[in-house]
Amino acid sequence: MASIFTRIINREIPSHIVAEDERYIAFLDISPLTTGHTLVVPKLEVDYLFDLDNDTLAGLNVFAKKVAHAIQKAVPCVRIGVSVIGLEVPHAHVHLIPMNVTNDVNFSRPKLTPTQAELSAVAEAIRKNL
Amino acid sequence: MASIFTRIINREIPSHIVAEDERYIAFLDISPLTTGHTLVVPKLEVDYLFDLDNDTLAGLNVFAKKVAHAIQKAVPCVRIGVSVIGLEVPHAHVHLIPMNVTNDVNFSRPKLTPTQAELSAVAEAIRKNL
Repeated sequence: MASIFTRIINREIPSHIVAEDERYIAFLDISPLTTGHTLVVPKLEVDYLFDLDNDTLAGLNVFAKKVAHAIQKAVPCVRIGVSVIGLEVPHAHVHLIPMNVTNDVNFSRPKLTPTQAELSAVAEAIRKNL
Repeated sequence: MASIFTRIINREIPSHIVAEDERYIAFLDISPLTTGHTLVVPKLEVDYLFDLDNDTLAGLNVFAKKVAHAIQKAVPCVRIGVSVIGLEVPHAHVHLIPMNVTNDVNFSRPKLTPTQAELSAVAEAIRKNL
């Protein structure tokens, strides 16, 4: 069965997409740790990040860099933190998290609960800065 | 002034190195979140991960993949988590953290306090699996 991320890629599930090319997609996390929290995903459905072939892994990070710079322009922050955990969805994904203090990337914290309209506005702001 | 990581690269500060090539180095975090917690660092001294040029950033992740596979062979775990925060040392570095549950990569948890002998044994086990 296709992962939830593949279903997002295939437009079977709606999402707030901020960037996409032939090999990768980036969309907002709907339960963000901080405003602008984005997931970067290879379209190739591989569970574990380090099982990606070298070329896909390398390209994923170059794509993430472009997205990270756009997020930082849209959402003022000290820098964009990176986290890859991946125990919940079996499709490799990189969390890009606008951060000001280390605790901003602590996944044990309560998540934010933005409205669809708020997510839509953040996604548009990021896209404008790509 | 050279960063603490450049001083490790230059052997001015001792460390438990697990892998090294011309462009990257990996050594154990001396205050690990879990046993086998390793830092992967580009020799190019750049503060922010996403200020690295694309080629160095791509290569860093391919190097980290090789190290991650060796860590997982040396330290049984579900997978290797990845975290980049970087607010403390102004030299880009990737945390590779053996994890079994999401909370293993929570930087707000108390750190372990391994002895030098314990760190040395872990580093040797990782090197043997490279």
